[in-house]
Amino acid sequence: MTASIFADTPAIRYEGPDSHTPLAFRYYDADRVVLGRPMADHLRIAVAYWHSFCGDGADTFGPGTHRRPWHTADDMAHAKTKLHAAFDFFERLGNPFFCFHDVDVCPLGDNLTEAGDNLFAIRDLIGDRMERTGTKLLWGTANLFSHPRYMAGAATNPDAEVFAYAAGQVRNVLTVTHQLGGENYVLWGGREGYDTLLNTDMKREQAQLARFLTMVVEFKHKIGFTGTILIEPKPCEPTKHQYDRDAATVHAFLRRFGLEKEVKLNIEANHATLAGHDFEHEIAYAIANDLLGSVDINRGDSRLGWDTDQFPNNVPELALALVHIVRAGGFATGGMNFDAKIRRQSTEPDDLFHAHIGGMDVLARALLAAEAMIRDGMLQEFVDERYKGWDQGLGAEIMAGDWTLDALADHALDAGIAPKPRSGRQEYLENLVNRFV
Amino acid sequence: MTASIFADTPAIRYEGPDSHTPLAFRYYDADRVVLGRPMADHLRIAVAYWHSFCGDGADTFGPGTHRRPWHTADDMAHAKTKLHAAFDFFERLGNPFFCFHDVDVCPLGDNLTEAGDNLFAIRDLIGDRMERTGTKLLWGTANLFSHPRYMAGAATNPDAEVFAYAAGQVRNVLTVTHQLGGENYVLWGGREGYDTLLNTDMKREQAQLARFLTMVVEFKHKIGFTGTILIEPKPCEPTKHQYDRDAATVHAFLRRFGLEKEVKLNIEANHATLAGHDFEHEIAYAIANDLLGSVDINRGDSRLGWDTDQFPNNVPELALALVHIVRAGGFATGGMNFDAKIRRQSTEPDDLFHAHIGGMDVLARALLAAEAMIRDGMLQEFVDERYKGWDQGLGAEIMAGDWTLDALADHALDAGIAPKPRSGRQEYLENLVNRFV
Amino acid sequence: MTASIFADTPAIRYEGPDSHTPLAFRYYDADRVVLGRPMADHLRIAVAYWHSFCGDGADTFGPGTHRRPWHTADDMAHAKTKLHAAFDFFERLGNPFFCFHDVDVCPLGDNLTEAGDNLFAIRDLIGDRMERTGTKLLWGTANLFSHPRYMAGAATNPDAEVFAYAAGQVRNVLTVTHQLGGENYVLWGGREGYDTLLNTDMKREQAQLARFLTMVVEFKHKIGFTGTILIEPKPCEPTKHQYDRDAATVHAFLRRFGLEKEVKLNIEANHATLAGHDFEHEIAYAIANDLLGSVDINRGDSRLGWDTDQFPNNVPELALALVHIVRAGGFATGGMNFDAKIRRQSTEPDDLFHAHIGGMDVLARALLAAEAMIRDGMLQEFVDERYKGWDQGLGAEIMAGDWTLDALADHALDAGIAPKPRSGRQEYLENLVNRFV
Amino acid sequence: MTASIFADTPAIRYEGPDSHTPLAFRYYDADRVVLGRPMADHLRIAVAYWHSFCGDGADTFGPGTHRRPWHTADDMAHAKTKLHAAFDFFERLGNPFFCFHDVDVCPLGDNLTEAGDNLFAIRDLIGDRMERTGTKLLWGTANLFSHPRYMAGAATNPDAEVFAYAAGQVRNVLTVTHQLGGENYVLWGGREGYDTLLNTDMKREQAQLARFLTMVVEFKHKIGFTGTILIEPKPCEPTKHQYDRDAATVHAFLRRFGLEKEVKLNIEANHATLAGHDFEHEIAYAIANDLLGSVDINRGDSRLGWDTDQFPNNVPELALALVHIVRAGGFATGGMNFDAKIRRQSTEPDDLFHAHIGGMDVLARALLAAEAMIRDGMLQEFVDERYKGWDQGLGAEIMAGDWTLDALADHALDAGIAPKPRSGRQEYLENLVNRFV
Repeated sequence: MTASIFADTPAIRYEGPDSHTPLAFRYYDADRVVLGRPMADHLRIAVAYWHSFCGDGADTFGPGTHRRPWHTADDMAHAKTKLHAAFDFFERLGNPFFCFHDVDVCPLGDNLTEAGDNLFAIRDLIGDRMERTGTKLLWGTANLFSHPRYMAGAATNPDAEVFAYAAGQVRNVLTVTHQLGGENYVLWGGREGYDTLLNTDMKREQAQLARFLTMVVEFKHKIGFTGTILIEPKPCEPTKHQYDRDAATVHAFLRRFGLEKEVKLNIEANHATLAGHDFEHEIAYAIANDLLGSVDINRGDSRLGWDTDQFPNNVPELALALVHIVRAGGFATGGMNFDAKIRRQSTEPDDLFHAHIGGMDVLARALLAAEAMIRDGMLQEFVDERYKGWDQGLGAEIMAGDWTLDALADHALDAGIAPKPRSGRQEYLENLVNRFV
Repeated sequence: MTASIFADTPAIRYEGPDSHTPLAFRYYDADRVVLGRPMADHLRIAVAYWHSFCGDGADTFGPGTHRRPWHTADDMAHAKTKLHAAFDFFERLGNPFFCFHDVDVCPLGDNLTEAGDNLFAIRDLIGDRMERTGTKLLWGTANLFSHPRYMAGAATNPDAEVFAYAAGQVRNVLTVTHQLGGENYVLWGGREGYDTLLNTDMKREQAQLARFLTMVVEFKHKIGFTGTILIEPKPCEPTKHQYDRDAATVHAFLRRFGLEKEVKLNIEANHATLAGHDFEHEIAYAIANDLLGSVDINRGDSRLGWDTDQFPNNVPELALALVHIVRAGGFATGGMNFDAKIRRQSTEPDDLFHAHIGGMDVLARALLAAEAMIRDGMLQEFVDERYKGWDQGLGAEIMAGDWTLDALADHALDAGIAPKPRSGRQEYLENLVNRFV
Repeated sequence: MTASIFADTPAIRYEGPDSHTPLAFRYYDADRVVLGRPMADHLRIAVAYWHSFCGDGADTFGPGTHRRPWHTADDMAHAKTKLHAAFDFFERLGNPFFCFHDVDVCPLGDNLTEAGDNLFAIRDLIGDRMERTGTKLLWGTANLFSHPRYMAGAATNPDAEVFAYAAGQVRNVLTVTHQLGGENYVLWGGREGYDTLLNTDMKREQAQLARFLTMVVEFKHKIGFTGTILIEPKPCEPTKHQYDRDAATVHAFLRRFGLEKEVKLNIEANHATLAGHDFEHEIAYAIANDLLGSVDINRGDSRLGWDTDQFPNNVPELALALVHIVRAGGFATGGMNFDAKIRRQSTEPDDLFHAHIGGMDVLARALLAAEAMIRDGMLQEFVDERYKGWDQGLGAEIMAGDWTLDALADHALDAGIAPKPRSGRQEYLENLVNRFV
Repeated sequence: MTASIFADTPAIRYEGPDSHTPLAFRYYDADRVVLGRPMADHLRIAVAYWHSFCGDGADTFGPGTHRRPWHTADDMAHAKTKLHAAFDFFERLGNPFFCFHDVDVCPLGDNLTEAGDNLFAIRDLIGDRMERTGTKLLWGTANLFSHPRYMAGAATNPDAEVFAYAAGQVRNVLTVTHQLGGENYVLWGGREGYDTLLNTDMKREQAQLARFLTMVVEFKHKIGFTGTILIEPKPCEPTKHQYDRDAATVHAFLRRFGLEKEVKLNIEANHATLAGHDFEHEIAYAIANDLLGSVDINRGDSRLGWDTDQFPNNVPELALALVHIVRAGGFATGGMNFDAKIRRQSTEPDDLFHAHIGGMDVLARALLAAEAMIRDGMLQEFVDERYKGWDQGLGAEIMAGDWTLDALADHALDAGIAPKPRSGRQEYLENLVNRFV
């Protein structure tokens, strides 16, 4: 086996904030203890196999610009070359986790038999490299959106045979994920939606989707997979409307079909912004509704209407999201997967390192800022103080169900209640945050 | 009492498509039977008291431009002048319904006592004019967002006394709505959301909101109100984030708090587009999840990011929404409320007539187009045919729960399933629709 | 040569509005005289070679779904098969024009020599089929955005050799366009912009772009091409920012570099909406500034942030755009090119016919509506009446430069000017339009 | 005269980054020398009179929440109270500049005579306080958008008398601005656009706008005002389309009417984002086209579609904008005006201080980061290196006009040019920036 394109890059080391070495960490220091846990255990960073090793810089207006040796053919030999390069990359970067789709790691062939044969064959190689490098699997997933058979959906396809094919593919990947010690299994329904309502029976399709998800949950338990089943919301693209639009939409779906205790969310930053939400909002909503599973930690461009999947680079925004996550107890099985790709013009293998190092450093800085905000405590105190009227007296009684509307209305009349607005102090609080970021 | 500003306008009559009379209906023909029901009973059109009689054309960059006699003071005398003008307008337009907030029909004074006194006083006058004109009340609602006391929310306010004040206000308006024979009661949470997460406890606020809604539902039953309680989704404006973002978000909220059988949705077209949805999508989603209550039938401007609340004028889009509604059995207690306002430059009383006549004609044309599409049947046939594999055989068995993932995966392998994509025929279907609109 | 995939489809005929034949025109009647000109001469409809014959339904999330015989290899033999199929399609559809990029009609090989050889070879075949079918060339263009060499722009590339390569490519295509009697030559700068300002010298790049355009204009005159040079604005995609953002931005660029008399605009509907404009606005702006050249008549989806390039289907919007165009004298060398593609799920050759027939019918209806509005005259009268104060008296004097600010301010003071707002009558005018659409 | 509401607040002082004093600067240190100039001279910060002293927290859904003593009546006495409070605020904050509209500082009465009388009366008081506090006037402007007479535009009004009235108003404010030593005069055309094209003659309106602007420029020279005339672009709101949409659109307008040497731009951050641009883009475009005048330094919310006018708080974005400004030589007559308002819930006078202190500190940090990036030089070196092929050889010859398209195409062919793509290094550059912010 020839040396991979990453072989000449030395392992990336932590050198501290003053380092001018481009290929070094300035903030990401895996073992540094932050609020009682090593930084690496807070962030649980994963590299996305697809963007970093399958992506070639192609876009709708032109073919790939990144020339990698394994792009020249789509067979098992090239899949292996890619695999070794990927793990060489992990070894140098020091990311604790990676994530993959079946189609990323091997060709899926012409039918389910070939797909399974290839996947199970490459599994052993993956397992071997995982063992040698110590890189773990954050999650696996089946690609149920690229092949033409899925053009009208997988579980939501008008053709029941497509549903069955998808079942076969998911069984393979969930099994392999389990065998490789994966901590989660993700479903992203890229074609589970519609291009036009004119040819769509939404009610029926949502029932099909629920049936599929139920079957996946049952299978998970059958094989003893103790990881988490995650749904990744996205509002659109490639479809006009994707059923798993955002955290709240998936929440409604899970509750309607009784799956809210079995399935959690994989929140992607760029998908949040495409849906019109701040990433922080989606995180806060998921936590408030006990649905946070894992995170795809990329960024979009607020001026552009498609999934640009850029590496994160805005510390202030990430710091606030991390405050929510850390306060909620941090990730259980989840982590932070860079579902991010280098730009079409970033053609060199080194660019992959720059991108990941930049992303990891930004997350590390954000975590340190979150630590400082939590230790300082003033933000939390402000909120606690603001709502304290709900912890006692009238507020507590209302929440306890002690008051009917009628009785409360009488009380308001009788007591001549005349509440005085109190400043929300938004600018003061924004300044406070700016002390830490 | 002097004559109202509308007194000189004769009643608006149906004159047919070839009419050139500006103040006449060309399509809206209340008694015309469409699919077995009079047109008026399908559409159940309501005029919005606030936009049409309280609005004065003011916007963020300038004060009002519409001079109405009742705008010169905010007291009961002027409220009565406004009321008589409003009913004069209804009488001429022939709308079967209207909708109102408490603050639209009378001043709310300085405290709950005054608010109640004024509202109950004006109620009798409203009832009298309703009886004389035959105009019915589609829904009432309490304004829980304009007064400074509500700047941080009503039910979701950090101050429990604001919650109590809101309870007092809702009791008044729900009672009056009941007494006036209103068919629904609407809650729009214009300030139930946040401006910044920095000062907000989202989980707590959602629990407060659920408590409030539960109390309203209980009160409705207590007083024997048989109308429907409706939540009106909106994603933002005035807040950065409003909790009742869209149909799916409210769906999640209702299910989480066990209210999905008690509360339905009032879907507004412009709120749908602000949330990134086609109006038709929100209608279809609500129907698929048994949540459709009523509709605010305005339009936004797809190029603008705020609630422009314009009168509807696009027949093709409305026709498809009406196909969904009519196929689902039409409105029960709901209807189509013009939550729409004439433009700032539309200063004349006549402009109000043009706007409503245009809107009613457009809805009538859309209904006639929907009728033609439903009678023709080809759209529905196409969809039925497309999904027929789910009505029998493998598809039906899957939905019946007869297959596990494992068994289905085996079946897919054993049977060598190789599904062939079938054209979705979007362009053909779009052409088909264009035959009718 | 075997029969093309379109060979079995009979020629599409006009059958009138009541026709139920799916593959027939209901409104497009080429020879029908509208305001003194045949309908075909007003609309000058062109088929886009790329979307209809090169496109295969691929998107960012999956490969092509449309199986065409010529997609299996990228060589001259397959290019010829494609060409014959394309002209078979034109023959049946009856579109008077088509448009193409060099890369659509032949492979461009590995270097400029091959690119030229292939293009000049296929030119003769194109010319032959044009002559036999009577289909004319609306415009040609060079693809300066797909090949990796152009990833950082063509004229705006940091590498001057890329500029030179692009010059070679444009010379070829402009020459061939001239030889084939093309009526326009288009430049769309898909990569003439930036992904990040961090690596970009905007001032320099705009100067390069101007230099390139100037050279193209000079070359056009040198070879005696009497057609129009057109720039096609687009705000972004694939780049983050494309320099030719919208009509006004190109206008500024042309004026700054003294090219406003040599170059006009090819306005695309979907590009307009991506830039935050109504299509009608861009048309009106171009006409007001004497810049209208031609039109790419597709549609986007107002809820989606990328170029969906769908076929047009909204008569009301198109009718208003056509009123502007017809009133301005109609197209000179321009026309209406369907820069539109069938959906990924529209896999059948027939779907191409449905799409184009639907688009042509919609344009024909819009033209007939525009005719009716123009004949009726009330819309124009309203506007003329509204501004008539500028045709005489004070208004005319101001525009003639007869007043200084000082003198006019004195006049306003002395005359005690107190202008009264007059209703803009938007709703009335919208109703008026609805009489015709 | 009673003490103002700000009288109890001590002057705001610089205390350094470690300060925990809420009402102190942590970075803004007016006299600190940055790249050879005091920080204050780089930033030239101005307070916006309208938002800070006229605004009361009202929005479209509710009246004001900020109770200030001068809000209770709109007469000269209250205008004076407001004025003294404003200068008390300036004195404490230490902002070197302020900006105002005529309507901010005094009532405009019922006609031009009253408007002038009031303005000239208050001018003396303003001048007196300016002298005592040392606060200077960055710019003045006339409000030509709030009064109903302007509902259809000022210069672009269909009524020439409105144009004349506006001339009177501008003469007053430009004169007073000159008399008070103002450094710029701004025109923001809030109603110079359209709500619907149906009632609009765009070509005519643009000619009117150009005529008005020309008259203003002539008047400026007549009275010897040596400041800069600035246009402030905005795409929409309150109108559907505002003619001065963005920097490029105004550029086109100025060049078309020969005003590009007389008028520059006042770029507002939030207006840029509403137009679909990064603020940094608008700055870079203005500089590349020699149009940068001044800046309104607020921020919008990327998830919201209206002008939220929040105080700036994102250092990374501002740092890059400042790099452009500083490298271009900094402001001449311009500066950074906080066109920003405290939130509706920020009801306390102190909130105004928090907001301005936060904004000034963020700008100071951004300036220090810009200084560090400029001193480091690597960003600029990267760009220079990337384009160096245009400084010599073929590139330089092309730009010098030495090559025709024909000759260059021949050269490309003969030399067998085969340009190789070079990495754009976006991620590396983003990491580089993150060293400084």
